[in-house]
Amino acid sequence: MRFKFSIIALLLEVVFIILFGLFAEYDDENITLYPFFKDVHLMIFIGFGFLMTFLKKYGFTSVGVNMLIAAFGLQWGTLMQGFLHGGRGGKIPVNIKSMINADFSTATALISFGAVLGKTNPVQMLLLTFLEITVFAVNEHLVTEIFQATDIGASMTIHAFGAYFGLAVTLILYRPGLKNKHENEESSYHSDIFAMIGTLFLWLFWPSFNSAIADENDKNKTIINTYYALAACAVITFAISSLLDQRGKFSMVLIQNATLAGGVAVGTCADLTIYPFAAMCIGSIAGIISVLGFHFLTPVLASKLRIQDTCGVHNLHGLPGILGGIAGIIVTAIQPQTKKGVQLTAGKQAAALGSTIGIALLGGALTGAILKLPIWGQVSDQNCFDDSAYWEVPEEGKLHEINSNHYDEHSRFEAIM
Amino acid sequence: MRFKFSIIALLLEVVFIILFGLFAEYDDENITLYPFFKDVHLMIFIGFGFLMTFLKKYGFTSVGVNMLIAAFGLQWGTLMQGFLHGGRGGKIPVNIKSMINADFSTATALISFGAVLGKTNPVQMLLLTFLEITVFAVNEHLVTEIFQATDIGASMTIHAFGAYFGLAVTLILYRPGLKNKHENEESSYHSDIFAMIGTLFLWLFWPSFNSAIADENDKNKTIINTYYALAACAVITFAISSLLDQRGKFSMVLIQNATLAGGVAVGTCADLTIYPFAAMCIGSIAGIISVLGFHFLTPVLASKLRIQDTCGVHNLHGLPGILGGIAGIIVTAIQPQTKKGVQLTAGKQAAALGSTIGIALLGGALTGAILKLPIWGQVSDQNCFDDSAYWEVPEEGKLHEINSNHYDEHSRFEAIM
Amino acid sequence: MRFKFSIIALLLEVVFIILFGLFAEYDDENITLYPFFKDVHLMIFIGFGFLMTFLKKYGFTSVGVNMLIAAFGLQWGTLMQGFLHGGRGGKIPVNIKSMINADFSTATALISFGAVLGKTNPVQMLLLTFLEITVFAVNEHLVTEIFQATDIGASMTIHAFGAYFGLAVTLILYRPGLKNKHENEESSYHSDIFAMIGTLFLWLFWPSFNSAIADENDKNKTIINTYYALAACAVITFAISSLLDQRGKFSMVLIQNATLAGGVAVGTCADLTIYPFAAMCIGSIAGIISVLGFHFLTPVLASKLRIQDTCGVHNLHGLPGILGGIAGIIVTAIQPQTKKGVQLTAGKQAAALGSTIGIALLGGALTGAILKLPIWGQVSDQNCFDDSAYWEVPEEGKLHEINSNHYDEHSRFEAIM
Repeated sequence: MRFKFSIIALLLEVVFIILFGLFAEYDDENITLYPFFKDVHLMIFIGFGFLMTFLKKYGFTSVGVNMLIAAFGLQWGTLMQGFLHGGRGGKIPVNIKSMINADFSTATALISFGAVLGKTNPVQMLLLTFLEITVFAVNEHLVTEIFQATDIGASMTIHAFGAYFGLAVTLILYRPGLKNKHENEESSYHSDIFAMIGTLFLWLFWPSFNSAIADENDKNKTIINTYYALAACAVITFAISSLLDQRGKFSMVLIQNATLAGGVAVGTCADLTIYPFAAMCIGSIAGIISVLGFHFLTPVLASKLRIQDTCGVHNLHGLPGILGGIAGIIVTAIQPQTKKGVQLTAGKQAAALGSTIGIALLGGALTGAILKLPIWGQVSDQNCFDDSAYWEVPEEGKLHEINSNHYDEHSRFEAIM
Repeated sequence: MRFKFSIIALLLEVVFIILFGLFAEYDDENITLYPFFKDVHLMIFIGFGFLMTFLKKYGFTSVGVNMLIAAFGLQWGTLMQGFLHGGRGGKIPVNIKSMINADFSTATALISFGAVLGKTNPVQMLLLTFLEITVFAVNEHLVTEIFQATDIGASMTIHAFGAYFGLAVTLILYRPGLKNKHENEESSYHSDIFAMIGTLFLWLFWPSFNSAIADENDKNKTIINTYYALAACAVITFAISSLLDQRGKFSMVLIQNATLAGGVAVGTCADLTIYPFAAMCIGSIAGIISVLGFHFLTPVLASKLRIQDTCGVHNLHGLPGILGGIAGIIVTAIQPQTKKGVQLTAGKQAAALGSTIGIALLGGALTGAILKLPIWGQVSDQNCFDDSAYWEVPEEGKLHEINSNHYDEHSRFEAIM
Repeated sequence: MRFKFSIIALLLEVVFIILFGLFAEYDDENITLYPFFKDVHLMIFIGFGFLMTFLKKYGFTSVGVNMLIAAFGLQWGTLMQGFLHGGRGGKIPVNIKSMINADFSTATALISFGAVLGKTNPVQMLLLTFLEITVFAVNEHLVTEIFQATDIGASMTIHAFGAYFGLAVTLILYRPGLKNKHENEESSYHSDIFAMIGTLFLWLFWPSFNSAIADENDKNKTIINTYYALAACAVITFAISSLLDQRGKFSMVLIQNATLAGGVAVGTCADLTIYPFAAMCIGSIAGIISVLGFHFLTPVLASKLRIQDTCGVHNLHGLPGILGGIAGIIVTAIQPQTKKGVQLTAGKQAAALGSTIGIALLGGALTGAILKLPIWGQVSDQNCFDDSAYWEVPEEGKLHEINSNHYDEHSRFEAIM
């Protein structure tokens, strides 16, 4: 990995810096959006990063490569979105809003990272980030500028997109050797608590995520809708999690993930006048779908469809993202609304949802095919879900190594004696 | 637990959604309070949640059930406070301020959760939350509307209330079997560090908590008072913690908790013109009282009065809350002040303090009696303070440690023999 | 430690409270700076605190004594800066801006804490904090008022100052007994993840740190420059970290620290019109310097120059701070700029950099000599890097669980056999 990774990373970084030198200039906007930016920033780096630390031996990669992807991706996201939106006289005006959009664009790659977590190396992740953000920017342009659909919290353009892109990648990268549960593909007591840091920061700042680029007048409504959608979703998730367990126990993976589905699903119509009632209904349905997805669908996807979705992003981002898109179709069908001078229609919303999923699957499949090329150096099945493939890992900290080695050690000792 | 919990949770959630459908409507306030809301939100979910993760085997419940209580309670808090405050034409106007108040109302239940931590099941906690928020809303209405007392940082209405409510509950639920220290009722090295996440987020955002609903003109003063009260309290806590230990060592439980007492105690008069000097004095006294409470009072409460206060909420919220109430009485007695056109008097403040503690004790005792009903399924003494009663807990987290430790010990044994 | 620490802490706290009583008064500024204050506050307590938790047995001290130093130091910082800036009629006006500056002043002591981490006791740290903040305030006054240099993000006055002060202290306190790696001076798997909490909160809020006291008109630019400097720095750090490792693996210590160097280095000219391009160049160079410093310089400093820099603050704050100072010299030389009505010149900038490093080294050496006095009770070499010297540490986490599990396991084993 030594030279491949560092050369590709250095090369792309140099290219980015040159492109910034050629195109980026300050845009003198005021900084009223800065508080919203900071919340999104926290969600990207702390939220996504820690959410993925649930694996017992993969915390360094989860939080570290998450940081790498996001820091790398936000530069490319700034450039791609700047190029597509035209800018002034060929220049890319950079301001707090474009920083929010840059952070948003990285979210798609981080969601896809969740699908392939443990099975790809940092070189592959750099490439995935580069390719996915490129495709994302095109699709986002299509949805907002061509279809003129609304998707303020990006249920479709970020969540569903990131999920289906990642699922397509992981399908192409299918590893038959991981058919039986890998011994490292589980959590430890403390890794599950670390993951709750991610869950809570995502949950807490989701109202900011959904309202970050909403019109000033709609922010209040968007925040309220998201707040109650998440609250209802969380209670429902606990209830259904207990209901599905034979002894009525809660499952950490569900609490870590499905409690957030309400934020995803309410995204598309969070800035519409749906009232807390509808927001809570959407949140509740999202919680139910997400829990059922984790419980019933994920195992089937893995065994029948060869889709190995490590973090279950299909249940947290995929299905709730589609639900959000459908909610947008229904709301615009029932209640004629205008956003930014444009009449919203169910047809435009449906086109946006369809194109998003189609482009995500196609883009993900192509990206998967590129990542599958042997030159990037695949990690062996055995070393999957293990930080020590990419990180210097403290020896003593490795309780399990010690442990699992315990008996080995023991026999080795005996062999010596 | 399977059906009891899920049916009660689903039922209440459906009722909440229906009530929101009938009564809740947007209130078009601007969102200048949103930054304060977010800080309170963080304190409720991260602050309280992680503060309680100090128990070595109870982190899932601490942070998870904390989330459940808060997500559930904020819905009921919105409704209760809306009903009591009348609203417009029978409707409940929802805005950022009502979201802050909703979050505040859950704090009382989370404080009480600290008193009973490890000894109640999720069904009991849902009921406690429902009942306590109901009583809280009534008492808060009494204090602010009838007595017209000031309590901007809620030293009385949240902190003292939550603490004495919880103490009454835990008294009624007294478990003789836990008279001798339960082997799980202790921290581990990393659980103590997790708890510091909670401590620090509470400590850092306490100025926002106290100033969240203060008048725009008083926010500056409130923030400054709270900042310096906490700083003085933290230094005093370290000093007294060291002084009380035979070898001069710091105690984690004191640093985790007593450093926060200054924020509680300065609450009632944080928006009055007391100057940093008085704020620091209040903070320092709060630190001393809190440390002494943990050191001398908590063991006595448990052994003599049958009050088993797991987190020592009496020392963090109870005594400092009373101190805050008394400070309010003294300040209003010395210095005539007006808030919202109402003359503050020592008599009104004393009435507020007295009623709060009386109602909290009574409400807590009744709630305790309800929670004691056998139908809710008490956890056995032996399974107290253990997540595995309510959660699927990763096996390896436990076994491994055992093994690795086993090995070292083993060789040491052999060396001895 | 018992009486020494508590008496000194109580005494100084009483003195602080009296001084606040005599001098501090509210300044009725509006609270538009409060969001920036909160971010800085988070960085000081969570950022610095958790960044230092990487040591496997020193997490309590890292996060706890960090809190002590900061809570203590912010009071002294308020007073010192108030005295130096004159105030109104002998009074010190306290407002959100002075709270930001108070927090800033503690950062110097926390940086120096990183240099001596594990080798000094809390009494020594209180003294260091007191002395360092005194010297810092004088130097900061010199730089901003006398030299009228610009240093908005405090690359020089905080980062380089704190680093060289700390390096001078650790040089004077040189411990030959720690020449060979102490067995506790390493991380564990989870302690490294805890440290990433610190890293990420610092990284995320650095734009706020650099822009906190920038002019309203320059905040936008400052935020943008810092954001892109950090993003470039992070990518470069991953690349060089991999490049330097024989197997191309990432090193946690580099990711935890060098990713932040871009924020330090861009500080001095973050509010100048350098454009994202130059900010990214500065960030990239900072990342390279910092990684190389950790890799090559730190071992040499320890072995040849007797400078034992536990956290490598030289690489995170020292070298990047100097780089920031140099960048400031170059930018002001190339591009004539005015700040607050004053013409910036390369000469003033160079004077500021030189005086800062000189005063830091001198102040640090004197402070080190005072800390070396035997009356403060040095910790033995053997007990370095071990919380149990100053804290009640849970037994079970380390040995107890091991034992009890051991015996249970053992007897279970025997029962089977």
